[in-house]
Amino acid sequence: MSTAERVVNVFPVDPNLEPTQQKKPLHNRWHPEIPPVAQVKVNSVFRVEMIDWTGGQIKNNDSAEDMKTVNLARCHHLSGPFAVVDERGQPAQPGDLLMVEICDLGALPGHEWGYTGIFDRENGGGFLTEHFPKASKAIWDFEGIYASSRHIPGVRFAGIIHPGIVGTAPSKELLDIWNERERQLVEQGTEKMTLASVLHCRPMALLPEPKYALLGSIDPKSADFRRIASEAARTIPGRENGGNCDIKNLSRGSRVYLPVFVPGANFSIGDLHFSQGDGEVSFCGAIEMSGYAILRCQIIRQGMDRYLSPMGPTKLHVNPIFEVGPLEPRYSEYLVFEGVSVDEYGRQHYLDASVAYKRAVLNCIYYFAKFGYSPEQIYLLLSCCPCEGRISGIVDVPNACATLAVPTAIFEIDVRPKVSPTPNVRVVQVTLPQCSYDGNLATFPSR
Amino acid sequence: MSTAERVVNVFPVDPNLEPTQQKKPLHNRWHPEIPPVAQVKVNSVFRVEMIDWTGGQIKNNDSAEDMKTVNLARCHHLSGPFAVVDERGQPAQPGDLLMVEICDLGALPGHEWGYTGIFDRENGGGFLTEHFPKASKAIWDFEGIYASSRHIPGVRFAGIIHPGIVGTAPSKELLDIWNERERQLVEQGTEKMTLASVLHCRPMALLPEPKYALLGSIDPKSADFRRIASEAARTIPGRENGGNCDIKNLSRGSRVYLPVFVPGANFSIGDLHFSQGDGEVSFCGAIEMSGYAILRCQIIRQGMDRYLSPMGPTKLHVNPIFEVGPLEPRYSEYLVFEGVSVDEYGRQHYLDASVAYKRAVLNCIYYFAKFGYSPEQIYLLLSCCPCEGRISGIVDVPNACATLAVPTAIFEIDVRPKVSPTPNVRVVQVTLPQCSYDGNLATFPSR
Amino acid sequence: MSTAERVVNVFPVDPNLEPTQQKKPLHNRWHPEIPPVAQVKVNSVFRVEMIDWTGGQIKNNDSAEDMKTVNLARCHHLSGPFAVVDERGQPAQPGDLLMVEICDLGALPGHEWGYTGIFDRENGGGFLTEHFPKASKAIWDFEGIYASSRHIPGVRFAGIIHPGIVGTAPSKELLDIWNERERQLVEQGTEKMTLASVLHCRPMALLPEPKYALLGSIDPKSADFRRIASEAARTIPGRENGGNCDIKNLSRGSRVYLPVFVPGANFSIGDLHFSQGDGEVSFCGAIEMSGYAILRCQIIRQGMDRYLSPMGPTKLHVNPIFEVGPLEPRYSEYLVFEGVSVDEYGRQHYLDASVAYKRAVLNCIYYFAKFGYSPEQIYLLLSCCPCEGRISGIVDVPNACATLAVPTAIFEIDVRPKVSPTPNVRVVQVTLPQCSYDGNLATFPSR
Amino acid sequence: MSTAERVVNVFPVDPNLEPTQQKKPLHNRWHPEIPPVAQVKVNSVFRVEMIDWTGGQIKNNDSAEDMKTVNLARCHHLSGPFAVVDERGQPAQPGDLLMVEICDLGALPGHEWGYTGIFDRENGGGFLTEHFPKASKAIWDFEGIYASSRHIPGVRFAGIIHPGIVGTAPSKELLDIWNERERQLVEQGTEKMTLASVLHCRPMALLPEPKYALLGSIDPKSADFRRIASEAARTIPGRENGGNCDIKNLSRGSRVYLPVFVPGANFSIGDLHFSQGDGEVSFCGAIEMSGYAILRCQIIRQGMDRYLSPMGPTKLHVNPIFEVGPLEPRYSEYLVFEGVSVDEYGRQHYLDASVAYKRAVLNCIYYFAKFGYSPEQIYLLLSCCPCEGRISGIVDVPNACATLAVPTAIFEIDVRPKVSPTPNVRVVQVTLPQCSYDGNLATFPSR
Repeated sequence: MSTAERVVNVFPVDPNLEPTQQKKPLHNRWHPEIPPVAQVKVNSVFRVEMIDWTGGQIKNNDSAEDMKTVNLARCHHLSGPFAVVDERGQPAQPGDLLMVEICDLGALPGHEWGYTGIFDRENGGGFLTEHFPKASKAIWDFEGIYASSRHIPGVRFAGIIHPGIVGTAPSKELLDIWNERERQLVEQGTEKMTLASVLHCRPMALLPEPKYALLGSIDPKSADFRRIASEAARTIPGRENGGNCDIKNLSRGSRVYLPVFVPGANFSIGDLHFSQGDGEVSFCGAIEMSGYAILRCQIIRQGMDRYLSPMGPTKLHVNPIFEVGPLEPRYSEYLVFEGVSVDEYGRQHYLDASVAYKRAVLNCIYYFAKFGYSPEQIYLLLSCCPCEGRISGIVDVPNACATLAVPTAIFEIDVRPKVSPTPNVRVVQVTLPQCSYDGNLATFPSR
Repeated sequence: MSTAERVVNVFPVDPNLEPTQQKKPLHNRWHPEIPPVAQVKVNSVFRVEMIDWTGGQIKNNDSAEDMKTVNLARCHHLSGPFAVVDERGQPAQPGDLLMVEICDLGALPGHEWGYTGIFDRENGGGFLTEHFPKASKAIWDFEGIYASSRHIPGVRFAGIIHPGIVGTAPSKELLDIWNERERQLVEQGTEKMTLASVLHCRPMALLPEPKYALLGSIDPKSADFRRIASEAARTIPGRENGGNCDIKNLSRGSRVYLPVFVPGANFSIGDLHFSQGDGEVSFCGAIEMSGYAILRCQIIRQGMDRYLSPMGPTKLHVNPIFEVGPLEPRYSEYLVFEGVSVDEYGRQHYLDASVAYKRAVLNCIYYFAKFGYSPEQIYLLLSCCPCEGRISGIVDVPNACATLAVPTAIFEIDVRPKVSPTPNVRVVQVTLPQCSYDGNLATFPSR
Repeated sequence: MSTAERVVNVFPVDPNLEPTQQKKPLHNRWHPEIPPVAQVKVNSVFRVEMIDWTGGQIKNNDSAEDMKTVNLARCHHLSGPFAVVDERGQPAQPGDLLMVEICDLGALPGHEWGYTGIFDRENGGGFLTEHFPKASKAIWDFEGIYASSRHIPGVRFAGIIHPGIVGTAPSKELLDIWNERERQLVEQGTEKMTLASVLHCRPMALLPEPKYALLGSIDPKSADFRRIASEAARTIPGRENGGNCDIKNLSRGSRVYLPVFVPGANFSIGDLHFSQGDGEVSFCGAIEMSGYAILRCQIIRQGMDRYLSPMGPTKLHVNPIFEVGPLEPRYSEYLVFEGVSVDEYGRQHYLDASVAYKRAVLNCIYYFAKFGYSPEQIYLLLSCCPCEGRISGIVDVPNACATLAVPTAIFEIDVRPKVSPTPNVRVVQVTLPQCSYDGNLATFPSR
Repeated sequence: MSTAERVVNVFPVDPNLEPTQQKKPLHNRWHPEIPPVAQVKVNSVFRVEMIDWTGGQIKNNDSAEDMKTVNLARCHHLSGPFAVVDERGQPAQPGDLLMVEICDLGALPGHEWGYTGIFDRENGGGFLTEHFPKASKAIWDFEGIYASSRHIPGVRFAGIIHPGIVGTAPSKELLDIWNERERQLVEQGTEKMTLASVLHCRPMALLPEPKYALLGSIDPKSADFRRIASEAARTIPGRENGGNCDIKNLSRGSRVYLPVFVPGANFSIGDLHFSQGDGEVSFCGAIEMSGYAILRCQIIRQGMDRYLSPMGPTKLHVNPIFEVGPLEPRYSEYLVFEGVSVDEYGRQHYLDASVAYKRAVLNCIYYFAKFGYSPEQIYLLLSCCPCEGRISGIVDVPNACATLAVPTAIFEIDVRPKVSPTPNVRVVQVTLPQCSYDGNLATFPSR
């Protein structure tokens, strides 16, 4: 029995500084050779701080120009990697499971704000780029657990704060699998590319890109750096190691069980979100923020064999498991919007959950637009408010059915359908941050 | 002020009788000319009883032969249509919204049981047919709000009882749209059909089928019957009128706002589920049952204009809206399984939420199989237990990310990952109802 | 493995008949010699029906005269007793614990209504009799899970349906303890009676009363009947055997662990409530109803020793344990009213939780009265809506602190305090059922 | 539209310093003349830090001597008062309501621990002093939202963090009412004192005590100080101004509506609790801590008239109102212990909720003691874990019925009653911090 130890801050950051000026080196790629910045012992409780995913490219102002020109090759800026050892100092080993408990999360004093953005169609776009091709953004102020935005008036909600990214370092073998399968997709892209992808101007996948690579403490002038930067995987998609899963319920008190691919596990964390809707539909859709996490780890020896079931050519084809925490905002009333896999042009698709979800999101956007919001405001809102996207039916040929449930309590006004024909209260209109757009605006059936 | 009126039973059924022997005529197709069986006034509270969706084809026994040979052309057996009038006797009109409040739902005394099935690959299949091609089933006993199954021991849960189907009658114009777009899909099927569809041996869509049509009170020998039966839409997919949405949270106390396409709205209800998991993955995946609903209606005049936003060539391209009710089982602990859009053969797909959800479901199945269950038992269980399927990330190229959250309290044993290497408790094995299979069993990478 | 058994109805009732005309004999007293009406086996699921606690004395009309003259010596009308045996036919034994799982509860078709009453000061009164001495009542209509009342407009809520009473038969030894300690209280009453009790004109306790006793199948003309009726305990208070605990969360899916005092346990159930607020403040305060329960039992052998800790002179001085069920209405927003142990006349009391709770209830009544309700309407409402009464602080001399939390969603209008000085929406006033009052109305400081 | 302002820290503290050494002066009494330390504007979001209620008297160690000798005349150490002005700079006025929104709460970095204590019978005692007369304590380590204690192994839970005290300054008129009614209680004490109070050796009330008074920025050597210190009310009980209400659900996101008695409202906050059980039964029963709150205020002009109803001789006899927040730990399974107003010696009391609650607490303590805990460990645990104390029935003469609901998930082992006769898992025993006791230990019937 001994007195409590302090919760040690193993990765301090200062959001006022550039990513390269931070005390501890950041990284923005996945690679087995990025050295750990610290070693943590199982059951110890420690603190990790994070800058926002773009590394400060987006400012707290009323212009969307920064959102239009954001450099995605610099993203995400991750804190770590952290090597994990057991009580006797033995590191986690490949084949183990690493349990990371997310004991708490929060903003840094003086940085109580975040942002949600729509990416320009020419720069990544999002789920509804064909409808909303222009960059835009909303700034959110944090009032403790609540967020409100001067750009989307009449809305206030308690966030489900969570890290968009938590993941372990891949082994070289796993990294090669990623690079190979994503390269194939890109190469086959021209023939296989879907209509949606063409309209989006979105790349099929983001392959290794040495430019703007940050590799932690590796000397940027070394030959190793050049080699690793050309091999290292981008952080945009979630993969076998966890990574950018954007699971909005990975909030206070939850646990993630990550497969271990390299000695020490070398896990990283970042992309902190004050809140996110299921799907993060506008891509930069969560309320992106800097902040801190309080963490605790456990090693489950041989956990991959004991709990995971690889599917694919190798033992490495696995996915993490999660346990949700006990502390999420409690809502009792939801409006639920449905979509089936008939798209917004009336075309029938076969059991396509993405099409169904897109329709549910569009139905929702134009519902709330009836109360005075612009469609872009709701698109931003659905990206970041605690709404739930569900796969409701996936077997009833030909229509997949998806739903989007929005808690009504986030609105100041009563947004439920009313029998009475009196006009509903309308919100005061506020203009979103604007920016120029050089492409051809998609024409959409007027309504 | 007056004393309470009795809750009138406007559609009594007897599950011991054949569908054609019921007091009120059933129907199993959507068509504007199927006559209403009763008229209900807004704000009155009334009772509707329903037989199970197959009309008694599946029996409470330990053989899966009935599941293998089920006649889907006879499904679903719906109660209704009900014409709705306002306080002054004026019927709902096209362009209105019909609010149906689901005040309560339950089993019929003496029929406190239900079933979950896997369809044979040659007869409809399901979400994972390539992995589980053989028909199987599980029988569930209802103990009030709880269900347990002699075929899946060690599991017991409170159901989220709901109607799989509630929908209004389509207008002729809408019906034509349905038939046209689904016919196109079938015709283009041979070239466009996905690998999954080929493996499933599943039809792309189910076109009008006069054989086995039930059209309510229309005389089966009349010319009208023959014409209507050849036009009427099948009830399998959800569409603009609601229909088979299989939204598991449409439970006690919830409301659905349905577009009205014909005078009176003529809504029908059926396909009662004691419980269902998001996605209803095994197709006959909910706990299917007979039972009753207590309902109350409202008419929102001009509600389609006031609240819906058509998307597509016509004003009819809309979807219903829902409000969830206050009475669902409360669970606090969930294990969450994740999938990204890399399929179980290691192939990379582009932002495909269906592939991601499939992987999440497979990961979950083989996780629980480690505790002694057969994969088929878990496949059945995930179809019907209150698990949540979420679209977590739909924008991070190339990987969509989907999750499946399973409440741990439905298991008698502790199913969470444990640090301690002691073997976990395993369930007593029970053999599922078997049936022969005449196709070629897909070979799957062993694990 | 066998097919499901039907859920057997072991105690059918007809609410249209008098208590003495029911198929199975009722009882309204606790005594070890009241014979069981049926035997139930552990793990079997069975159905018990119940008439309302007064046995039909209160009618669905707009007069409160029946409430004023209700005969409490006839209450409560219980269904049972049921003897419980294990799988091998061996009955529960004294020292065991009987687990009763309340699998479901509901109204009987055609009897979808209930009532809440204020008792006349001369006939039992309630928690606030000095303020509300006149009898009154409200009738509630059930719309599935929802209740609304023509006597309290603008309010609608989902009930937490539960039996007010579930208890085992006492042994003769335990019965003697009850009779002795309650007799002492009554005898010492004149000197010890509190001011509140005097103002209430309430008896200190209700001692055995042969008149109106119902003793199940015991022949009313027998000598045994006369002896037992003069010994049997009244059912008003909860005691060691459970009984009238009025625990509002003992709803669908919950379990009660009752001590067993006689062979077979001989448990009874009754006093069904559609909903109740903590405290059931107006005495006849829940929404009283007839209805059914679906039950399942287990015997925990030697459970009293294993799980209970007697406190008092004998091993019999114990209390039951409960587990709440998973199916209660979900509310997210509550207004909370506080009271400390300074009474409504400004007098300081020492750590008196009853005084503190009384103040919280009064504060709440007069808060909602500001929206146009009469105080009596809110008094009735707080007795029966799903409000929570908490003991918040019980140690901070001299003030106990109690709170009453009311879910705001039960009101149609927004009842939260508002910054804006515009007058709040007020409810349409409705006159409660009236009745004459012959006593002296207490004068209360006007407000 | 302007960029976000920083959340200003209006009351910084350093828990390593003595109360008198803090940057801003603390106070530990209620009095209208204690000057505000800062002015805050409505709708601004600001931060207030607090030291623990004893001002650092209790240390993070394994001895209970500090708990035995704690000086209660020095408690509570409050932060504030804060004067509130509206958007135009006009202060809150008597008759207004002050809304304080508790936007967030947390620990200070480096001080992630707290304590729960049992007070010695000779020094304040608690709810069960006659049973547990010796001082003891437990130290809790905070792991983000979770707390665990080396003194109570096998238990871990998410706290419902809240301030025990938030209150406005009383007017002189209100202060006089407090002093007068509490003085009367003390004076009448000798004749009126209950048996419980005698056994407790607890004072009936704590009258003004100049010794150890802290009065903010008032010069301790001034004549004013001496006068005010002799008049100022102690902070132990909750009263009309809010104060020490110890409402455990006043957590993240909740709101309190406080009556305003002096210009500016001058509200204070303190006594931060990481978690507390309803009743805070061991008196020093919450997990006491230092930490911070993020707050936001609103003024409701004339709110006392608009929303409160005074009861007593003056307009000042009111109580605050609360709205609970959306962010509390979610638990789905509770064990519920019941008590009726028959005390632990078998004596019958008349509708006494305090006696009933005491029995419920004792029943619970000895239930969990069966799993290997000492009764003192559970007494401490029930004081601070998120358990709910309810007034279930308050009208069924002669027995009040109270319940205590404990979430089972806070225990590592399964603590529910089991049918199987196998011995339950028992916790590893750990000895609580001890200290000497000089009184006569009450003898209690052995069990």
